[in-house]
Amino acid sequence: MQENIIYGIRAVIEAINAGKKIDKIVARKALSGELFAELQKVCKQKGIRIQFADAEVIDRITTANHQGVVAMLSHISYVSIDQIDDIARSKGEQPLVLLLDGITDVRNLGAIVRSADCAGVHAVIVPEKGSAPINGESVKTSAGAMHYMPICLTQNTYYALRALKDKGYRIVGATEHGAEEYHKVDFTGPVVIVMGSEDKGISRQILKLCDQNAKIDMYGHIESLNVSVAAGIILFEAARQRKL
Amino acid sequence: MQENIIYGIRAVIEAINAGKKIDKIVARKALSGELFAELQKVCKQKGIRIQFADAEVIDRITTANHQGVVAMLSHISYVSIDQIDDIARSKGEQPLVLLLDGITDVRNLGAIVRSADCAGVHAVIVPEKGSAPINGESVKTSAGAMHYMPICLTQNTYYALRALKDKGYRIVGATEHGAEEYHKVDFTGPVVIVMGSEDKGISRQILKLCDQNAKIDMYGHIESLNVSVAAGIILFEAARQRKL
Repeated sequence: MQENIIYGIRAVIEAINAGKKIDKIVARKALSGELFAELQKVCKQKGIRIQFADAEVIDRITTANHQGVVAMLSHISYVSIDQIDDIARSKGEQPLVLLLDGITDVRNLGAIVRSADCAGVHAVIVPEKGSAPINGESVKTSAGAMHYMPICLTQNTYYALRALKDKGYRIVGATEHGAEEYHKVDFTGPVVIVMGSEDKGISRQILKLCDQNAKIDMYGHIESLNVSVAAGIILFEAARQRKL
Repeated sequence: MQENIIYGIRAVIEAINAGKKIDKIVARKALSGELFAELQKVCKQKGIRIQFADAEVIDRITTANHQGVVAMLSHISYVSIDQIDDIARSKGEQPLVLLLDGITDVRNLGAIVRSADCAGVHAVIVPEKGSAPINGESVKTSAGAMHYMPICLTQNTYYALRALKDKGYRIVGATEHGAEEYHKVDFTGPVVIVMGSEDKGISRQILKLCDQNAKIDMYGHIESLNVSVAAGIILFEAARQRKL
């Protein structure tokens, strides 16, 4: 059995109900019956798309008794806010977390997750809504980093950030508003770095939670860096300080 | 008259022969004659495409006596290796030059030129062949920085680099081969930073000219950063050091 495949209608329903993240469900064309109707209902609720195919296509995916339904589990490792601490501490490191406050470009999202992995970030927090999707394209642009990086999908970035602040994390916003130069900001303790959206930057509500803002001075004609470049510069400053 | 337009067949030929960079030539359909044949020949030699259009289209571009031919000049400011020094010195700064040794992705090229502008780079050297083109897409990805950044197109990156080395520039290659951590490298004097291509990195010939290599330590699962992020990190370390 392939690790990332679940087959059989009941098993797939159970997996969805258990909160497993499903990339794709493939079902045999013209499949019907009460159990399949239940699967369709659950998928509709969770926004999971069922793709229909000939029986032979499914046979090629698995030789097991699949009852006409296979589900591909997501490779992404989704974590809760509470788990982030453990991920860092299990490595004997101070938590370094990145919160993306509404990155809308899929390629930026992928590029940032790639840089985050390279810089040793322990988890990336992404809002469930209003963000570029975690899909094939963002996984590809991440050079596969999406498969390694613990992702925390949150319904409410404000509460997620509040929870971490209450645990003693310093919140550093990447913005020029009343900011310190990024290389003068202390990134050594438990830190959340907040990157804002491409067009609007960090939202006002989130800005209020920031303990300090970090800016990157500009020396040319263009007023701002691409957000994935800005993220890379700040993340690697954090990595540099933590290594010292 | 619009600044960036040249009209009249003879004037356009002269402009091309004078080495002006042309974005596009528009000619009236069914145009003929000896002079136009000469223009076609010159365009062919220089690889400039002639686009044919109805007379009204050209009338809309300029009301002047265009003889059926208008040329749009490139907004890009192309410079020679010898001019780079002057650009920096006229600002009272030590030259900071970026050489892109075969960046093939148009968006990476644009993103890097954007970051280069933001970091105060004085000129970007790009090989004429084997590089992503300077076109609408790279200009767009650069957020317009292409219009401000002096670009030095070179037929031979090796000789271009040698010329700068002979003038006393230090050449720093962005590569892990026998490298110092990037933040321990001195970027304060006249410096050329060399970024390699996405797949092969810096070519062997160019590596030999590097006085020092600068690496960015990786802390995750993915072995390398996107080249535009890596360029941003190194360029802003240079900017930081120069400001101190």
